[in-house]
Amino acid sequence: MPSHSNATFMPREAVPLQQPVDETSAGPRDATPQASAHARNRIEIPDGHALFSAINHPKDINELNIAQLEAVAREVRRAIISTVSANGGHLAPSLGVTDLTLALLKVFNPEHDRLVWDVGHQAYAYKILTGRRENFHTLRTLGGISGFPRMAESPFDHFGVGHSSTSISAALGMAIARDLADEDHTVAAIIGDGSMTAGLAYEGLNQAGDLGVNLTVVLNDNEMSISRNVGALSSFLSRKLSKRWVQRFKQQMETWMRQVPRFGDDLANYARLSESSFKGFFTPGMIFEAFKFNYIGPINGHSMPDMVDIFQQVKDLEGPVLVHVLTTKGKGYAPAENNPTYFHGVGCFVPETGEAKKISACLPPYTEIFGRTLVDLAAKNDKIVAITAAMPEGTGLNYFADAYPDRFFDVGICEQHAVTMAAGLASQGYRPVVAVYSTFLQRSYDQVVHDVCLQNLPVTLCLDRAGLVGEDGATHHGTFDISFLRHIPNLLFMAPKDEAELQRMLVTALNHPGPAAIRYPRGVGVGAPSQDDPSPLSPGQGETLRDGGEAVVVALGSRVHPALEAAGELAKETGREVAVFNARFIKPLPKAQLLELARTHSRMLIVEENVVAGGFGSAVLELFAAQGMLRGQRIRLLGIPDVFVEHGPQRMLRKQLGLDKTGIKDALGELFAAAPLSQKDS
Amino acid sequence: MPSHSNATFMPREAVPLQQPVDETSAGPRDATPQASAHARNRIEIPDGHALFSAINHPKDINELNIAQLEAVAREVRRAIISTVSANGGHLAPSLGVTDLTLALLKVFNPEHDRLVWDVGHQAYAYKILTGRRENFHTLRTLGGISGFPRMAESPFDHFGVGHSSTSISAALGMAIARDLADEDHTVAAIIGDGSMTAGLAYEGLNQAGDLGVNLTVVLNDNEMSISRNVGALSSFLSRKLSKRWVQRFKQQMETWMRQVPRFGDDLANYARLSESSFKGFFTPGMIFEAFKFNYIGPINGHSMPDMVDIFQQVKDLEGPVLVHVLTTKGKGYAPAENNPTYFHGVGCFVPETGEAKKISACLPPYTEIFGRTLVDLAAKNDKIVAITAAMPEGTGLNYFADAYPDRFFDVGICEQHAVTMAAGLASQGYRPVVAVYSTFLQRSYDQVVHDVCLQNLPVTLCLDRAGLVGEDGATHHGTFDISFLRHIPNLLFMAPKDEAELQRMLVTALNHPGPAAIRYPRGVGVGAPSQDDPSPLSPGQGETLRDGGEAVVVALGSRVHPALEAAGELAKETGREVAVFNARFIKPLPKAQLLELARTHSRMLIVEENVVAGGFGSAVLELFAAQGMLRGQRIRLLGIPDVFVEHGPQRMLRKQLGLDKTGIKDALGELFAAAPLSQKDS
Repeated sequence: MPSHSNATFMPREAVPLQQPVDETSAGPRDATPQASAHARNRIEIPDGHALFSAINHPKDINELNIAQLEAVAREVRRAIISTVSANGGHLAPSLGVTDLTLALLKVFNPEHDRLVWDVGHQAYAYKILTGRRENFHTLRTLGGISGFPRMAESPFDHFGVGHSSTSISAALGMAIARDLADEDHTVAAIIGDGSMTAGLAYEGLNQAGDLGVNLTVVLNDNEMSISRNVGALSSFLSRKLSKRWVQRFKQQMETWMRQVPRFGDDLANYARLSESSFKGFFTPGMIFEAFKFNYIGPINGHSMPDMVDIFQQVKDLEGPVLVHVLTTKGKGYAPAENNPTYFHGVGCFVPETGEAKKISACLPPYTEIFGRTLVDLAAKNDKIVAITAAMPEGTGLNYFADAYPDRFFDVGICEQHAVTMAAGLASQGYRPVVAVYSTFLQRSYDQVVHDVCLQNLPVTLCLDRAGLVGEDGATHHGTFDISFLRHIPNLLFMAPKDEAELQRMLVTALNHPGPAAIRYPRGVGVGAPSQDDPSPLSPGQGETLRDGGEAVVVALGSRVHPALEAAGELAKETGREVAVFNARFIKPLPKAQLLELARTHSRMLIVEENVVAGGFGSAVLELFAAQGMLRGQRIRLLGIPDVFVEHGPQRMLRKQLGLDKTGIKDALGELFAAAPLSQKDS
Repeated sequence: MPSHSNATFMPREAVPLQQPVDETSAGPRDATPQASAHARNRIEIPDGHALFSAINHPKDINELNIAQLEAVAREVRRAIISTVSANGGHLAPSLGVTDLTLALLKVFNPEHDRLVWDVGHQAYAYKILTGRRENFHTLRTLGGISGFPRMAESPFDHFGVGHSSTSISAALGMAIARDLADEDHTVAAIIGDGSMTAGLAYEGLNQAGDLGVNLTVVLNDNEMSISRNVGALSSFLSRKLSKRWVQRFKQQMETWMRQVPRFGDDLANYARLSESSFKGFFTPGMIFEAFKFNYIGPINGHSMPDMVDIFQQVKDLEGPVLVHVLTTKGKGYAPAENNPTYFHGVGCFVPETGEAKKISACLPPYTEIFGRTLVDLAAKNDKIVAITAAMPEGTGLNYFADAYPDRFFDVGICEQHAVTMAAGLASQGYRPVVAVYSTFLQRSYDQVVHDVCLQNLPVTLCLDRAGLVGEDGATHHGTFDISFLRHIPNLLFMAPKDEAELQRMLVTALNHPGPAAIRYPRGVGVGAPSQDDPSPLSPGQGETLRDGGEAVVVALGSRVHPALEAAGELAKETGREVAVFNARFIKPLPKAQLLELARTHSRMLIVEENVVAGGFGSAVLELFAAQGMLRGQRIRLLGIPDVFVEHGPQRMLRKQLGLDKTGIKDALGELFAAAPLSQKDS
């Protein structure tokens, strides 16, 4: 069990390993502002660890002075680095906002005030400081605390998050509720600059300004989302305004100056000479004030006194206010500061060095197979272009970006736009590939229906992290995509059993004259060797991988190999021979093959890593109903039940849900136990 | 068959009924710029009708001079008013952009250039002028031309639209494609100011500016979307900038002026005195230049010479450019100018007066039943709040807005934000009702999953226009909602058989401690009398409306009454007694009742107005499979097949798809023709 107190790592100066401790300094309860006032003339050296371990409730933080807050921040960082190095998680974002979190909790009281963390992967410090210090080492483990704020986990998590850019809308709803109920607490959204690129954040900001309610938006500006930022807001924040904007402004100013009595042309001439001096006119605030927000900032997100001071003032302001805070991603841990993209979401690492812990199985993950194969295909087809939504590394498109920078487009956290832009490209004869996590494609459902499939445009959607994603949990599982995509007309929809089949499906999709989607799991496959020249598949053709007359398992994607193993074991243990069919195609279904299997087998198990409701199995049932082939066979659908699945290792989640080899074997056992019904029973 | 030449209506001065015709004026082919140059000293009185009827290809427009363009615009308006008064449609938007359309077609050539109309309900003039004049009278009729641009309908429709705010993203994709292919045509998106409130438009604008490609965005600013506008962009366009914005700017300017040598404080004092003069600094362009667009405008969208001149110049500009055009919604037809909201999308009307044509059946539509019932319920529960996305009239929430303005929120065209804001309200104990068309809820799929259902928050989603919507066609049918919602855990999901049941379901939803959705059709129901105090239903309880042992129809929502009629006729005609079950609940299914029906009936027809794929029927099959109740009965799913359904009257579409009384009777006949299979057959 990892524990923060045992952690040893290589910190930057900001986090000295051995904080000098004044043995005579006050304990945490006495270290209130009052107590320190008595000792005003002493140099106070707070005991960070003692203070930290006494914070059992956020109200304890309110009583700390600035130096004590800073000391606690160091301890919080230790705890975060210790746990994330052992469990994996979102390191750099949480280190970046540790100081901000303490400043917020010094001023606001989460028993009354409402704090909504956007995305929430930066809320580790908040979790530690709001009653979850003792359990923080269970972060992202099965049954442990979640990697994201969750209302069900703590009364201090005021809104559950995971997907980007929801915080302003949710906080606005809370602020409206407060006003309707005639209450007066603070409602604050804490949102990163990257999340601001999403349309949802713009929609929320726009209406909040329009309504003029009391709402605090804390903009956590670290000049990056997961990767680099895109667009106008980013220009404003960095003051890298376009030359044209500055020029036009200067012209307008000159025109105005000429009209000034007594000064007129002289002044205008002066203005013309000193263009650089105009830069001072432009502040990041202008854009937010256009949204009718009161703008404050930018302030140093690692200066505790500044932040506490500002938040104190903000409490009394009327109307919507935006506090612009500058933070450093990974702050306080040199490896993360130096490589914030890598340490954004990271696996286990050695805290002393920041080096990744070696994983014994070193198969390349599906992500990499996809990325490298697309590069190969693009060499032969210059119509292939690739689009991602702030996830070049996460989707493996970084290889494509390196090889074909002119044909690669990172649109920022804008899944809607990614898909519609792809439709525009496809309408002109290009072959756009949109690579995105299954869970994030949920944002583009309408665009897939309305812009891509309705027009039958050849956009290829590559859904990485389809199925159970593991530690990121309920907000991130890709367990709905079959259900939200398979009913859309015109779509070709596939799931590979292994890495080589993913390659073939990519070729199939890119040869297909209409829209196509491929779903594949997070992590590694079975190690099928990479093909140099993968051949396309015939749409609607699955493959029988194992014969057997007593039952058939119709398996999809990542469940094919566990099904094969289950059938093998069953044959050994019981002598029962069970066929295994790799369906490959969710749409069009391998119709003829499935009907033949329905004719020849009285027991059928259909297994997929998607919710059963509206999933692949239900498509097979629809087919059988339409063809009059529901003939009294025993058919069982095995997939994810009608619940949101918690976080934990993929392997354990699959086991819990009965989706691994053992689960499939058990399900087959149950099918055999229940004899096929005959018509007489009814 | 309506024809524009026979139309008589009451026009404003702008559209004189009898255009003076100079019999000697040149015909359309001769009326080229060259021809008119020869007659430079004559007052030219173009024969609008003759010109108009000769436009068979958009290139004909390029040859017209300004006066001729204006004359043609008058004829186009006649044609639009004539057809829309007969067929219904989007009148005011199309009249507003008729002049703009002609100016665009004068300068740009849609054989090479790409024009993407946002939403597309304003593209009637474009359709008329690009080869569809002769068929325009078939607008929105079965087999006739669509009410929206469609790539399949014409090579001049460069991108299909219907839902708002896709145009910039699609056009950006086209512009990138052009540059990759080393071509040099113009790509232009024409988008209304209302559509700019949607996050998708912001995402597109943001990236277009970032990439710096040659892209023209024509902002059609009529100061309203369908209803009023919301937010920051709107403030900029109307120059109603916040006082704070102006004040801060003024302060910055004063500070700067004090530093000017020789002038210093004097100048600053001058600046302080003349606050109003600062207004001149602020132009609508500033916001677009922040997005790195070249801004041009605002220009008069009814001045042909201005527009033609500007578009000529725009052709040669480098980089993204935004042309801000001011138009009047309904321009040229007094009733529409005076009441643009009513004439946005309108049924048949008398062109002479603008009065709606009376429809013989005057039942209140579902929309009105919903709206009035919600007002009644809100009187008893002050936690009920209502949210719409730019559709107060369309959803019936206008009644609520009138009764409870403080509890009503129109968020603009922002379905994503609407749902997440509702989740925020619900997290604070409120009972938000989000009323939206089924097709537009597609935009909020992720928010329904991630913000509402995952957190089990009591948001009520009211899906108006679920099922076939009729004349608006493929982009607007609400035929996917069961498939994209029923697999989401925690959701209570219902569909009423009639108006009174809608009332009961609304009560049920608002009593339910978690998220709920109700889907109901466009138009009128069966006339079930309104209930003063509707009682809640038991979740998961359907009702048997008719007994019968030979088969059972399990019907959902709007298909319940046609099923009853079909069963009645069948009994009369053949003596076969068929049971009819009103399922009411898509989720949770009426499990016990359905299993009992499966036990007692060897033939089951399941009918719904949703795609079969992943629909209600497939949920019933999943239940039967899980319970081992697929016992060799004949089960047939009747719903919408795996295609995008075209436009046409609801009645005719239902007939074509076999979803009306006759279709249900026929399906039952087929079930009887095919005897139930026994186990022996397999």
